[in-house]
Amino acid sequence: MLSKLKTFLIGSPLPTFATAQRRLNKIRALAALSPDALSSIAYANQEIYLGLLIAGSAGLSLALPIGLAITGVLVTVAISYYQTLDAYPSGGGSYVVASENLGKLPGLIAASALLIGYILTAAVSLTAGVAAIASAYPTLWPHRTHLALGLLIVITLINLRGSDETGNLMSIPVYLFLFTYLPMLAYGAIRLLIDGHTPLVAIAPPATEALTTLLILHTFSAGCTALTGIEAISNGISLFKPPQTKNARQTLAVIALLMAVLFIGSIGLTQGLAVIATAQETILSALARRLLGSGPLYLLVQTSTMLILAVAANTSFAGFPRLAAILAADGYLPRQLTNLGDRLVFSNGIVALAAITGGLMILFGGDSHALIPLFAVGVFLAFTLSQAGMVVHWWRKRGRNWPLKLFFNSLGALTTASTVLIIGASKFFEGAWLTIFFIPALVYMLLQIRLHYHQVASQLSLRGIAPAFRPFVNERAVIPVTGIHRGMIDAVNFAHVLFPQLTALHIELEPGSGEELKEKWNQWWPDVELVVVSSPYRSIVAPFLDFLDETDRRHADGQQAVVILPEIVPAKWWQNLLHNQTAWLIKSALLYRRRNQGFQRVIIDIPYHLER
Amino acid sequence: MLSKLKTFLIGSPLPTFATAQRRLNKIRALAALSPDALSSIAYANQEIYLGLLIAGSAGLSLALPIGLAITGVLVTVAISYYQTLDAYPSGGGSYVVASENLGKLPGLIAASALLIGYILTAAVSLTAGVAAIASAYPTLWPHRTHLALGLLIVITLINLRGSDETGNLMSIPVYLFLFTYLPMLAYGAIRLLIDGHTPLVAIAPPATEALTTLLILHTFSAGCTALTGIEAISNGISLFKPPQTKNARQTLAVIALLMAVLFIGSIGLTQGLAVIATAQETILSALARRLLGSGPLYLLVQTSTMLILAVAANTSFAGFPRLAAILAADGYLPRQLTNLGDRLVFSNGIVALAAITGGLMILFGGDSHALIPLFAVGVFLAFTLSQAGMVVHWWRKRGRNWPLKLFFNSLGALTTASTVLIIGASKFFEGAWLTIFFIPALVYMLLQIRLHYHQVASQLSLRGIAPAFRPFVNERAVIPVTGIHRGMIDAVNFAHVLFPQLTALHIELEPGSGEELKEKWNQWWPDVELVVVSSPYRSIVAPFLDFLDETDRRHADGQQAVVILPEIVPAKWWQNLLHNQTAWLIKSALLYRRRNQGFQRVIIDIPYHLER
Repeated sequence: MLSKLKTFLIGSPLPTFATAQRRLNKIRALAALSPDALSSIAYANQEIYLGLLIAGSAGLSLALPIGLAITGVLVTVAISYYQTLDAYPSGGGSYVVASENLGKLPGLIAASALLIGYILTAAVSLTAGVAAIASAYPTLWPHRTHLALGLLIVITLINLRGSDETGNLMSIPVYLFLFTYLPMLAYGAIRLLIDGHTPLVAIAPPATEALTTLLILHTFSAGCTALTGIEAISNGISLFKPPQTKNARQTLAVIALLMAVLFIGSIGLTQGLAVIATAQETILSALARRLLGSGPLYLLVQTSTMLILAVAANTSFAGFPRLAAILAADGYLPRQLTNLGDRLVFSNGIVALAAITGGLMILFGGDSHALIPLFAVGVFLAFTLSQAGMVVHWWRKRGRNWPLKLFFNSLGALTTASTVLIIGASKFFEGAWLTIFFIPALVYMLLQIRLHYHQVASQLSLRGIAPAFRPFVNERAVIPVTGIHRGMIDAVNFAHVLFPQLTALHIELEPGSGEELKEKWNQWWPDVELVVVSSPYRSIVAPFLDFLDETDRRHADGQQAVVILPEIVPAKWWQNLLHNQTAWLIKSALLYRRRNQGFQRVIIDIPYHLER
Repeated sequence: MLSKLKTFLIGSPLPTFATAQRRLNKIRALAALSPDALSSIAYANQEIYLGLLIAGSAGLSLALPIGLAITGVLVTVAISYYQTLDAYPSGGGSYVVASENLGKLPGLIAASALLIGYILTAAVSLTAGVAAIASAYPTLWPHRTHLALGLLIVITLINLRGSDETGNLMSIPVYLFLFTYLPMLAYGAIRLLIDGHTPLVAIAPPATEALTTLLILHTFSAGCTALTGIEAISNGISLFKPPQTKNARQTLAVIALLMAVLFIGSIGLTQGLAVIATAQETILSALARRLLGSGPLYLLVQTSTMLILAVAANTSFAGFPRLAAILAADGYLPRQLTNLGDRLVFSNGIVALAAITGGLMILFGGDSHALIPLFAVGVFLAFTLSQAGMVVHWWRKRGRNWPLKLFFNSLGALTTASTVLIIGASKFFEGAWLTIFFIPALVYMLLQIRLHYHQVASQLSLRGIAPAFRPFVNERAVIPVTGIHRGMIDAVNFAHVLFPQLTALHIELEPGSGEELKEKWNQWWPDVELVVVSSPYRSIVAPFLDFLDETDRRHADGQQAVVILPEIVPAKWWQNLLHNQTAWLIKSALLYRRRNQGFQRVIIDIPYHLER
């Protein structure tokens, strides 16, 4: 029944050879990978507007220059990643590029920054997107956390269904957003040409703070969040239909172009038409209202903004499981993250991301929006390490046009490094310091996991053992007896055949009960000794383990007595609640409560299945 | 470390022979068993006052007559239970008496009513008691659910420590309550004698409803909650030091006397002094304020009321685990409830009650106070069945003075039966109907559990099998192979010795990986066949189970191949998260996902313990 539900929710399992057929064409890959990048525009815009508003008309007149500077960074980063796609056709996320060219530690720093970034993007964009929709429909407001969790479940299921379905379903919000914003911006541009500029001075509220360099840098940092999500393509290259590199490069170019047009277009129009927002609405909403009035067209634009914000989380679902699988393959994360699920996606990574995101959403509710700009410093750190890695790559490998490529990646590295410094310095006390704590903590965890796998491998290694059959003999076995029943008969008969020295052990909880059992036992198996041990403290497991240790000591034959466990298995799961689980307790104690060094005791489970 | 924490919290384990020394003297037994009965007075009083207030002074003047009627019921019930203690010296709860004399079903109905009553008393008295304390100290108000949960944990731990500690700790609130209330009532009685009656007419607010018979009956029902908790003694007889019956009878008599004095005393004084409470305070608080002013004495009385309300839950902790253990011994509840824990108490029952109570408190918060009067109908149902059982008992058994005893128990049965009818009718739509749903549901559950145990016993029964050794031979074994490592060497060598026909099985997830493994395998164990099965859907368990079934079918030798499971056990528990739990998945599938009728496959677990 559970497996039917699973098939209903995520579809029937796909065979491994179907991997190639599950790749996406450019149209759907863009839809699957771009929501975060495109939605970044929406809040970067708002951050710039709010940052400058306090400096009055003089401040707001700097919006376009700052926007152009950010677009400059965007173009540099996009070109750098374009080159990365060429050099790493099998997927060149920041982790791969940084660890291959700069070393293990820079790679892990980049990976940690991205993992944290993905998680925060998922949590924050879901709550923010749903909050935006709920503020338009006030009846939904009290239920926004439940709605956000519901949306999380939907996005998780879509991603578990596989890339095909993700591409199809994400197309709706992404292309709706593009097909409402691009025409609106074009119409605005025409209006601007016809009507001409409106002077800001007359409209902007008076300045409350001076226009300092710090304020400008602060606004620039905040606006740089526009770039988050652009690295998704280089991580997700395996999603594309062949020719993968070509398709991925073209898609990256299109996304970068769209981001630039949307960003510069909206900032330019806002400044050119001197749009000012009230405290209750965003600057993009004010711009849309100025251009389209408050009718159905305006509502369509607002709805599409909310939808793309809400599905921005999907970029994390595309990126996180892939990065986690790469890290797991290198031994830095639990191995299970490399498993391809029923639908040929990294199901464990998807479920892990959903669980962490859901946990954060429940823990922090809607209050976490402030975290996104903070972790921008982490994302730009990953960008910088990746670009610096590319610089080393070109220097080592040379190849066609290498000086030009090296130049572009150097420019990218310098630009993103300066951005890291600017964001880190101007936002340090607002929370950028958090990255100083969380990234090293995550790097430490990754290294510890790797260490564990290394230790396991060396402990299991066959080095120094020649292939040969060395019989591993156990002649002694102990069977715990609670009573004589059908399950016990099979177990004793089985053990009797295999182990010449079989001992039965009864732990007596109520004084005197052992004698009665012994009499009955001797009728059944007179040649198997039944030992009765009384347990004054009413524990079964501890006296049983003590007895095993003691017999081993007494025999001193280098063997560890085998444990025979007759286990009654009920017909329905809930019936387990009605039984004492003694077999389970003994098994757990033998496996996990290790009692002595070099302990290796064989456990033989002889189930007796009840029919009803 | 966990076991040290346990010892610190509940004390070191006690041997079974210490049971006799853990019995309580009368002083401490009264403290352990009476909190619910005594605290009932507090809210029964309030219910009567509120019920009559709406009928103005004419209504309030009926408080004393109604109080006397309830005290009459109390005395009858107390005498009946007094006789029960005599007839059932080893513990005569309603369940025992009703099932022995009236039959299985009446017994189970009484048991269900009491179980539900205990759970509700625990949940409601904790929240109500803490709410009372928190309303005196408003800073605590927002934390009252957490405080109530904290108090639940404390009461649970005290009860897990055993009856000695329970008796000691409960003495404080119980005797504090008695030593503040009894002198206060005495002082009030003297004042009343000196000052004389105050007429109610001048003081009571005008009537808003007419004084109908229904209103009087309704108030009577509400006031009958004063009796809840009185059955605790007959359930808890095993707590007493010998001579048990005598001690229990004397304690019951003292408790009944105290209840009567407290109840009649407070109601009489309230009416005699014409005390009227404001909407913000209880009638007992108003009485105390009238007698003692608002100084420290008044605060002491209030504090003692709150404390006894808060620990009323302890009566449930005394009663529930004992009743559950009796039911479990008869097969109506999970057998584990009969286990005596480390401290010679029914730990599982205590923990179960704490878990259910905690769940109810989290679910309903403080809103559940209304439930207590509703389940009074259940409690009186249990009283009635118990008294009726006693009537049958005397009729059958006769003995000294049997007609007199039969008369008292008949009177008890009639009184409580009429109370059931009055409460049921007058409070039907306020929630008494809930008992019609919950008691049958619980009875059904108890019967189903009993049926399960019967079925298990008959399935495991040895009837028809003569004692004889019939060798249970398995020559075939299958070992799943993921790779060749130290753990695998031990497993193969062990299996090789015991099973002539050993097959190794590798489930190939990545096409081609099997060939490589096969080569290495043949170097190690050329005489053990390694079969490679490819799994296009990347599942390990399903192809493994299919292979087992297929081999069994092919061999058609009536045997089921044994499964050899090499299992790597990490040194620390968290390291389990880093491994693929394949052995665990296979074990669970073999034990719980039964694949075919009569399935009984032996599993041999060969652990390999890692050192770090």
